[in-house]
Amino acid sequence: MYHVRRSDTESIVKEPATDMAPAHYGATHRAWAMLEEPPLDSGRVPMALFSKQYHSPGTAPGTLINRREPATPTCINLVDFTSSSVEEHRLDSVEQCRPFLSRDSRTWVQVNGDIDPDVLRDLGTVFNLHELALEDVLNTGQRPKMEVYDDHIFVVVHLPTCEADNLVLTQTSLFIGKNYLICLYPRAEDPFEPIRNRLRQTSQRRLASRGTDFLLYALLDLIVDAGFPVLDQFGDELEALEEDLLVHPNQQTLASIHHLRRELLLLRRELWPQRELINTLMHDDRFLTPDSRVYFRDCHDHSVQIIELLESFRDMATSMLDIYLSSISQRTNEVMRVLTIIATIFIPLTFVVGVYGMNFHNPNSPWAMPELDWYYGYPLILGGMVCIAGLLIWYFKHRKWM
Amino acid sequence: MYHVRRSDTESIVKEPATDMAPAHYGATHRAWAMLEEPPLDSGRVPMALFSKQYHSPGTAPGTLINRREPATPTCINLVDFTSSSVEEHRLDSVEQCRPFLSRDSRTWVQVNGDIDPDVLRDLGTVFNLHELALEDVLNTGQRPKMEVYDDHIFVVVHLPTCEADNLVLTQTSLFIGKNYLICLYPRAEDPFEPIRNRLRQTSQRRLASRGTDFLLYALLDLIVDAGFPVLDQFGDELEALEEDLLVHPNQQTLASIHHLRRELLLLRRELWPQRELINTLMHDDRFLTPDSRVYFRDCHDHSVQIIELLESFRDMATSMLDIYLSSISQRTNEVMRVLTIIATIFIPLTFVVGVYGMNFHNPNSPWAMPELDWYYGYPLILGGMVCIAGLLIWYFKHRKWM
Amino acid sequence: MYHVRRSDTESIVKEPATDMAPAHYGATHRAWAMLEEPPLDSGRVPMALFSKQYHSPGTAPGTLINRREPATPTCINLVDFTSSSVEEHRLDSVEQCRPFLSRDSRTWVQVNGDIDPDVLRDLGTVFNLHELALEDVLNTGQRPKMEVYDDHIFVVVHLPTCEADNLVLTQTSLFIGKNYLICLYPRAEDPFEPIRNRLRQTSQRRLASRGTDFLLYALLDLIVDAGFPVLDQFGDELEALEEDLLVHPNQQTLASIHHLRRELLLLRRELWPQRELINTLMHDDRFLTPDSRVYFRDCHDHSVQIIELLESFRDMATSMLDIYLSSISQRTNEVMRVLTIIATIFIPLTFVVGVYGMNFHNPNSPWAMPELDWYYGYPLILGGMVCIAGLLIWYFKHRKWM
Amino acid sequence: MYHVRRSDTESIVKEPATDMAPAHYGATHRAWAMLEEPPLDSGRVPMALFSKQYHSPGTAPGTLINRREPATPTCINLVDFTSSSVEEHRLDSVEQCRPFLSRDSRTWVQVNGDIDPDVLRDLGTVFNLHELALEDVLNTGQRPKMEVYDDHIFVVVHLPTCEADNLVLTQTSLFIGKNYLICLYPRAEDPFEPIRNRLRQTSQRRLASRGTDFLLYALLDLIVDAGFPVLDQFGDELEALEEDLLVHPNQQTLASIHHLRRELLLLRRELWPQRELINTLMHDDRFLTPDSRVYFRDCHDHSVQIIELLESFRDMATSMLDIYLSSISQRTNEVMRVLTIIATIFIPLTFVVGVYGMNFHNPNSPWAMPELDWYYGYPLILGGMVCIAGLLIWYFKHRKWM
Amino acid sequence: MYHVRRSDTESIVKEPATDMAPAHYGATHRAWAMLEEPPLDSGRVPMALFSKQYHSPGTAPGTLINRREPATPTCINLVDFTSSSVEEHRLDSVEQCRPFLSRDSRTWVQVNGDIDPDVLRDLGTVFNLHELALEDVLNTGQRPKMEVYDDHIFVVVHLPTCEADNLVLTQTSLFIGKNYLICLYPRAEDPFEPIRNRLRQTSQRRLASRGTDFLLYALLDLIVDAGFPVLDQFGDELEALEEDLLVHPNQQTLASIHHLRRELLLLRRELWPQRELINTLMHDDRFLTPDSRVYFRDCHDHSVQIIELLESFRDMATSMLDIYLSSISQRTNEVMRVLTIIATIFIPLTFVVGVYGMNFHNPNSPWAMPELDWYYGYPLILGGMVCIAGLLIWYFKHRKWM
Repeated sequence: MYHVRRSDTESIVKEPATDMAPAHYGATHRAWAMLEEPPLDSGRVPMALFSKQYHSPGTAPGTLINRREPATPTCINLVDFTSSSVEEHRLDSVEQCRPFLSRDSRTWVQVNGDIDPDVLRDLGTVFNLHELALEDVLNTGQRPKMEVYDDHIFVVVHLPTCEADNLVLTQTSLFIGKNYLICLYPRAEDPFEPIRNRLRQTSQRRLASRGTDFLLYALLDLIVDAGFPVLDQFGDELEALEEDLLVHPNQQTLASIHHLRRELLLLRRELWPQRELINTLMHDDRFLTPDSRVYFRDCHDHSVQIIELLESFRDMATSMLDIYLSSISQRTNEVMRVLTIIATIFIPLTFVVGVYGMNFHNPNSPWAMPELDWYYGYPLILGGMVCIAGLLIWYFKHRKWM
Repeated sequence: MYHVRRSDTESIVKEPATDMAPAHYGATHRAWAMLEEPPLDSGRVPMALFSKQYHSPGTAPGTLINRREPATPTCINLVDFTSSSVEEHRLDSVEQCRPFLSRDSRTWVQVNGDIDPDVLRDLGTVFNLHELALEDVLNTGQRPKMEVYDDHIFVVVHLPTCEADNLVLTQTSLFIGKNYLICLYPRAEDPFEPIRNRLRQTSQRRLASRGTDFLLYALLDLIVDAGFPVLDQFGDELEALEEDLLVHPNQQTLASIHHLRRELLLLRRELWPQRELINTLMHDDRFLTPDSRVYFRDCHDHSVQIIELLESFRDMATSMLDIYLSSISQRTNEVMRVLTIIATIFIPLTFVVGVYGMNFHNPNSPWAMPELDWYYGYPLILGGMVCIAGLLIWYFKHRKWM
Repeated sequence: MYHVRRSDTESIVKEPATDMAPAHYGATHRAWAMLEEPPLDSGRVPMALFSKQYHSPGTAPGTLINRREPATPTCINLVDFTSSSVEEHRLDSVEQCRPFLSRDSRTWVQVNGDIDPDVLRDLGTVFNLHELALEDVLNTGQRPKMEVYDDHIFVVVHLPTCEADNLVLTQTSLFIGKNYLICLYPRAEDPFEPIRNRLRQTSQRRLASRGTDFLLYALLDLIVDAGFPVLDQFGDELEALEEDLLVHPNQQTLASIHHLRRELLLLRRELWPQRELINTLMHDDRFLTPDSRVYFRDCHDHSVQIIELLESFRDMATSMLDIYLSSISQRTNEVMRVLTIIATIFIPLTFVVGVYGMNFHNPNSPWAMPELDWYYGYPLILGGMVCIAGLLIWYFKHRKWM
Repeated sequence: MYHVRRSDTESIVKEPATDMAPAHYGATHRAWAMLEEPPLDSGRVPMALFSKQYHSPGTAPGTLINRREPATPTCINLVDFTSSSVEEHRLDSVEQCRPFLSRDSRTWVQVNGDIDPDVLRDLGTVFNLHELALEDVLNTGQRPKMEVYDDHIFVVVHLPTCEADNLVLTQTSLFIGKNYLICLYPRAEDPFEPIRNRLRQTSQRRLASRGTDFLLYALLDLIVDAGFPVLDQFGDELEALEEDLLVHPNQQTLASIHHLRRELLLLRRELWPQRELINTLMHDDRFLTPDSRVYFRDCHDHSVQIIELLESFRDMATSMLDIYLSSISQRTNEVMRVLTIIATIFIPLTFVVGVYGMNFHNPNSPWAMPELDWYYGYPLILGGMVCIAGLLIWYFKHRKWM
Repeated sequence: MYHVRRSDTESIVKEPATDMAPAHYGATHRAWAMLEEPPLDSGRVPMALFSKQYHSPGTAPGTLINRREPATPTCINLVDFTSSSVEEHRLDSVEQCRPFLSRDSRTWVQVNGDIDPDVLRDLGTVFNLHELALEDVLNTGQRPKMEVYDDHIFVVVHLPTCEADNLVLTQTSLFIGKNYLICLYPRAEDPFEPIRNRLRQTSQRRLASRGTDFLLYALLDLIVDAGFPVLDQFGDELEALEEDLLVHPNQQTLASIHHLRRELLLLRRELWPQRELINTLMHDDRFLTPDSRVYFRDCHDHSVQIIELLESFRDMATSMLDIYLSSISQRTNEVMRVLTIIATIFIPLTFVVGVYGMNFHNPNSPWAMPELDWYYGYPLILGGMVCIAGLLIWYFKHRKWM
C-alpha cells in the first residue's frame, strides 16, 4: 500500500497519531486560531477536504491491509431475534456466528471499533461476502452507495454527528442477506442502541416480527434522521452570523462564514448520493416487502428534506458572503467620507494659516504681507476661514455626504 | 422526544412561549433593529432557517408526542354535503364523525388550532389513516408531498400569508378518501371560509354536486392562489428598494435586500415541491375524474406561474446586491476623487508656504532666503502658487476627474 | 374581487388612471430621474415586476369581473374567407357571428380594445368556450400556454413591442376551432393588419386557401417575429453601454445596465414558455395538417433563436456589471495612487520645513538650531529636500506606481 | 421589408457600406480605441451582438428580397464526379445544372459571393427546394440547424475564421439530395478548395467513390475543424492575458478580458447548436450509409471537443475577471498601506514642529513655551520625535503592515 | 499539415524543443516568477489551455503525419499469457506480433515512447485497426472516449500524474480485440509495471486466467486510481492556501488560487468524459463477461468519487477567491480606519498650531492675536487641543472605529 490518508474516523482522535502526513493539520488549525480576536469556535478541527483511504494504483482488487495502528479494539455483538424471542451475545470470533445462520431467525451482527482486517476476512468467509465490498469497508471515505451481489446487498452510508462543535461523518457499512444483517461502524461507541432497545421491548414487537429489510429501514432511518440535529445547529450558527454580519462584521465573521460553507459543502458531497441510494433501495423489488416500502418512502422523504435544507443553507452562506463584502465596502465608504470631509475642510484652512506664517513681512515693501499690519487683520482672516469652512460644509450637505 | 424546534406556527405567537431554544431569535431581531437609522421594517420577525419538528433519531415510526403546550384549542368542524343539501356541525370528539362515513354524501372534516395528539390518534382510528402520515401532521415543517395509501391520499401543502409584513408559511395537512376530506390547519383562524360559503350558496351548486376531488381542488386552488398577494407585496418591496439602491444606498438598504433574498429563498424551498405535487396529483388516474382534471391543470398552471415569479424575483434581488456593491464602489470613487483633488492641490502649496515660514533669514548670508527681502517677493510667491494650482486643476480636468 | 393590479395593458396609458396602487410607480420613475446627470432614457417607464391580475383566493373558477374602468371600447371585426372569396364585417354584438359558424368557410373574429366581460361571456356562449379559458383572457398577465379542450384549443401568447423606448408585452388570447379563430388583443391598435392584407391580396391565395391552423401559424409567426426588432434595439443599447463602460463609467451607466438586465429578465420570463408552447403545438397531431407542420417548425426555430439571443444578452449584461465594478475599482486605484504619490512626497518635505519654522533659535545655546546660522544652510536644506523627493520618486517608479 | 440589419458577411467589408444603421459600429470601435494606453488589439472590429437579417413581422413566408447592394458577384461552380472521373464547370446560370441532375454521377454546386435572390429562386425551381429554406439562405444569421424535407435535407452551419485578429462567423447553407449537394457560401473566397483538391487527386479515390453523404461529411469536417485554429488563438490570448493580470493589471487588460468573453459567448451561441445538428445527422437512418456513420461520429467527437474547449475558456475568462478585481483590490490595499504609514508617521511629527512654530514665546510668562529657552531643547524635541516615529514603525511592523 | 501544437507529452520536455509556437510558454512562466515575493511554487509549468494536436482543416481523414522530432524512441513490449504460463518479449517490429495472434492465449502489446507513424501504420495493418482511431492516437489531446468498431474497441483515456509539482495528463490509447490488447503510452517510462508484476506472480493467477476484458479493467483501474494521489495533493495545497487566505493574504496567494482553479478546471475537462466512458463500457454486453462487470462497476464508482472530489475542490477554490476579496476589503477598511483616526485627530490640531504660528502679532492692535500675550496662553491652547483630541477619540469609540 502506497500512502494512507487521515480518515474520517481518525479526525476524532485527539492526540496526533502515527499518521504520515498530518503536518498541515495543525497548521490549518493554527491559522484559524492566530486571528487577532479570540475566535468564537476555537476548539474546531475542520474536516479534511480529502478523506479517502486508498491503495497504491495498480494494487490487486480485494487487497485487505490496514496500515494504521488500531486505536480501539474490534468488538462484535450479535442479536438474534424472531417475533417472539430476542437473544444477545458478545462474540470473540466471527466463527461463532455460523450456528445462527442456519436458524430460522433474523441475525444482526454489529461490529464496532477499528476494523481488524482478519475479522473482515473471516466475515467474508463465513457470510460469503464479495472481496470488493470488503475492501470498501476498510478503505473508509467511500461515497454512499449500494451494491447488489448474488445473495447479499452491500450498503455504505455516513452517519453525521456533531462532537464538540465539530462535524464528524462516520462511514457505516451494512451487509444484508436473507436472514442476517451485518453492520460495521468503525468507532467505539454504538449509536444504534435505541434500535436494540426497541427490539428488547416486548410492547413493540413490530420491529422484531419483520424481516431484515425492516431492520435495515430502522438503521437507515436513524442514520438519515441524525442529519436533523446537525442541520438544526448549522441553522443556529447561520442566524448568529447574520447578526454579526450587519452589526459589526470583522475578520472572525469571515472565517466563520468560510468554515460554515466548507462544512456544508463537504456534508452535501456525502449526503447527496445517500438520497440516491435510498431511492434505489426503495425501488428494489427483490429485496423489499411491499409493507416496508412505505417506510423506506418516508425515509427517502427525510433525506430529500435534508438535502433541500442543506442547499438552502448553502445559498444563505453564499448570500452572506456577498452581504459581508457589500457591508465592508459600505463601511469603507463611510470612513472615507469622514476623512474626506475633515481633510477637505481643514486642508485649505491650514494653507491659509501657513500663508500668514511666512516671514515675508518687510517694512520696506508695501507688497510684503501688509495684511499683518491691518488693525482688523486677524479677525478678518479668522472670519474668512469660517466662511470657507461653511461653504465646504454646505457643499457636503448638498451632496448628501453629511 | 429529543429536541423540539420552533415551528412555523409558533412564529406568529407574539410573546416568547415556553420554547427551549428561542434565545437567538431575539438576538437576530435586535441585530436588525440596532442599525443606526430607523429601520423601514422594524416589526419584522424573520422566518427561522430550520423550522422542522423532529423526534430523536431512532424513535419508532408513528410516535405521536407533542412537547409544546397547546396555545390554541383544537376545534373540529364538519360539513356534510350532497348536490342538494349542506349540513354543518361543530364536533366535540372525532367519534361523532362515524355516522357520516356510512352515508352516501361527501364529508369535510376541518380541524383548526394546535393539533392534539389524542384527536389525531382518534382520527387515525376512525378513518383508518396511516401512522406515518399522522406523525407528519404533528411534526410540522414537512416539505409539500403526496403519499398514496391503500384507501386514502395524504397531501401536505403550505399556505403562505403575510401578517404584519412577516411572511408566514402554515403547514396544511389533507387526507382524501372516497367520500371524505380531512383538513388539518394548525392555527385558530380558518382561511377556508370562502369555500364553505360557496358550498352554502344555493346558486353555485357545482362545487357541492361534485366529488371530494373537486373539493380538494377548491382547497388547493385557494392555497396556491394565496401566493399571488404575497408575491405582489414582494414585488412592491423590490421596486421600493430599487429606488433606494441607486439614489441613496445605505446599510438599511443592504439589510432589506438580505431580508428579501432570505424570505424568497425560504418561500421557494417550500413552494417548489408544491408544484411537483400538484403535477403528480393531476396525473393520478385512480383519484381524479376527467372533468376535474381540467381544473387541476389550471391550478398547476398557477403554481408554475408563482414559481416563475419567485425565480425572477430572486434573480432581481441577486442583481440588486451586485448593483448595491457597484453603486457603493462608485460613491467611494467619487469621494476619493474629491479628497485627492483637494489634497493634491493644497499639499504642494502648503509646502511652499512652509518653506517661507522657515527661520533661515540671516542678514549675513546672501544664500539665506533672499526672496524674503525682495520688493515683490510676496506677490511673486502667491502668483507662483496660483500657477501650480492652475496646472494641477488642468491636469485633473484632462484626466476627467473633475 | 379582492385586489386588482396594474396590468401590461395599463402601462401604456400616459395619464395616471383610476388604478388603486400606482403610487410607487411614479416613485420608481422619479428615482431614475433624480440622478444628477441627465438620464439617457428619461422617458422610460419600467415594466412592473408583478403584472398579473388575479381574483381573491377562494373565488369560484370562471368568475368574470373587470374592476378597471374600460379605457378603450371593445371592437369586434370578422373576416370570413374561403380560397376564392374574402368578406369583412365590423360587428356590434357577438351574436352576429352565429350565421358564419354554420358556413363551410373559415371565420376569423378579431376583438380589440379593453375586453368587456359581457362580450367575453357572449363569446363563450356562441362558440362554447371553457370558463377557465375565459377567466384567463380577462386576468391578463398569464404565462404563455396552450390548453386543449374538447372542441377548441386556447392559446395565450405575448406580443412584445417597443413604444417610446419602453418594452411593452401585450397578452394575446387565441381560440382555434375547426373553422373559426378568435383573437383577443386588449389594446386599440391592431398589429395583425399585415395578415389581413395578405388575405385580401388576390395574388397570395395560399393563406386564404388553407385551414385555421395556417391562419394560426400566420398570427404566431407575426407575434414571434415581433421579438426581432425588440432584440435588435436591446443589442444596440448594450453596445452603446459597452462604450460608456470602459471609457467613462458613472452612476447613469449603472442605472442603465440595471434597467436592461431587468427588462431582459422580464422578457425572458414571458418568452421562455412561448417556445415550449410552439413546440407542443408543432407536435399536436389532431390539429395540424402535415403541410402546416413545416411552417410551425420554422416558427419554433425563430422562437428558439430569440431565446438564445436573450440568453446571450443576459450573459452580456451580467458580464458588463462585473466589468463596471472592476473598472471602478481600477479607477479608484489610480486615484489612490496619485494621492499617495503626492502625499508621500510632500508630507516629509512639509515636516522638514516645519522643523526649521520652529522658534528654538537661541543664540545662547550651540544646540539650538545652529543650521539656521550656517552660511549655506538654506541651500543645503533645499538640496536635501530635493534628494528626499528624488528618492521617493525613484521608489515609486521602481514599484511601477508611476 | 421592414429593416435590414448588418449581417455576418458585412463585418468583413472594410469601408462603411450603404447600410442603414451602422452608426454605433464605429462608435463602439472608437470606444475601444479611445483608451489612454495604446490598445493591444487596436485593429479589432467586435462582432455585432445581434446579427440576424429579418423581414418585417407579418411578411409572407418564403419572401426573397435582398435590400443590400451586392458587394461581391454571385459565382457558381459545379463539380460532377463519379468514382472514375471528375468534371469541373463554371456556370453562368443555374439552368445549366439541369443536364447533370439526370446523370448517374454526384454533382456538387458551389455558390460563392453575395447571394443574388434571382439565382436562389432559380436554384429553388431547378432542384425543387422548399421556400422556407431559401428564405433562410438569404436571411443570414440563422442558428445552425437541419431541416428534413421530402426529397432533400437543408443544413445551416457557421464557418469560424480569424481575419486580422477578428473572429468572423460565416453562414454556410447546404442542400443535399440523392445525387447532388449545393453549398452556398456568401463570400468571395472559397474555403472548400482543399476538398476539391482531394477529389481531383487520382490517388485518393475514396471521397469521389462515395455518395453525397460522404461529401457532406468532408465539408462539415472542414467547417468543424476550422474551430481548432480559432480556439488555439483564443488559448494563446488567454495565456497572454494571464501574465498581464497578475503582473501589471490595467484598464487595457480589462478591455481585453471583456472582448474575449464577448467573443467566446457569441462563438458558443453559434457552435452549441452545431453540435446538436451533427448529432441528429449522425442518427439519421434514411440518409447516411453505415460506412459514413463512423466518419460523422468522428466529426461529432470533434464538435464536442470544441464545445468543451469553449466552455473551459469561458470559465477561465470568468475566473480571470475575478482575479482582476482581487488583484486591483490587493494593489489598492498596498497603496493605502504605504499612504497610511507615511501619513501616520509624519502627521504627529508635523504637529509637534507646528507647536514649536507658535509665537507664544513671551519672556514675561514662565508658562509661555519655556522649552524654547532650554539649553538642550532642540535636541530633546528631535529625540522625542524620533521616539514617536520609532514607536509607530514598531506598531506597523507588529500589525504586519510593513 | 497546417500547424502543430504543443501536446501533453511535450509539457514534460525541459528544454525548449523545436516547436513552432512555444514563445508565450516562457512568457507565462516568467509572469508567475516575476512576482516580487519569492513564489511558493516557482518550478511550476502550468498546463497549456489548448493542448490538442490537429491537422489542417480539410485534410483527408486517417492522415498519419508527425511533425515533431521524436524525443524518445518507440519501444514495443509483448506479454503473452494463459492461465498457466506467461511469456515476455521485446519486439523490434510490429510484424513479430503475428504469430501470437493465432495462438489461443491473450496478448498484451505495450508501445511506449513517442509513437512512430510507421509503427502505427504497421499496427493498423497487422491488427486491422480503423484509420480514424490511428489518427486519434497520433493527434494527442483527444477527449476520453470509446469507439466500437467491427472487431475491436478503441479507448482513449488520460493518466494524471504529478511531476515536480506539475500536473501532467498523458493520453493513453487502448485497442482491445478478442484475444489481444494494445496499449500506446507516448512516454518513455511505463506506469503499468505493477500489473505486469501481478501477471508474473504465480500466486495471483486470477488476472492471468481471465480474458482481455479483465486486463482492460486492471489498466483502467490503475489509470482511474492514479487520480487519488493527485487529488490528495490538491487537497493539501487547498488547505495550505486556506491558512494564507485569512492570516496574511497577498498577491502570491492570489496567484496560487488562480493556478489551482486553472488546473482543477483542466483536470475536470479531461476526467469528466472518462466517467461517462467507463459507464458506457460497463453496460456493453458484447464485450464484458458478467463476472468482470462487478469490477468495472467498482472502477466506475472510483471515477464518480474522483469527479465529486474535483467538483468540491472547485467549489472550495471559488469560495476561497470570494474570501480573498472580502479579506482584502476588510484589511483595506482597517487601514483606512487607522489613517482616518490619525488624520482626523491631528489635522484640526495642526490647524490650531498653524493659527498661532501666524505673524499677526501687532502690539498696536488689540485684535492682533492677543492670546499670545496672555500669561496662561500656551497652557490654555495645549489644554484646548487635548480636549479636541479627546472629543474626537470619544466619537470614534462611539462609532466603534477604535
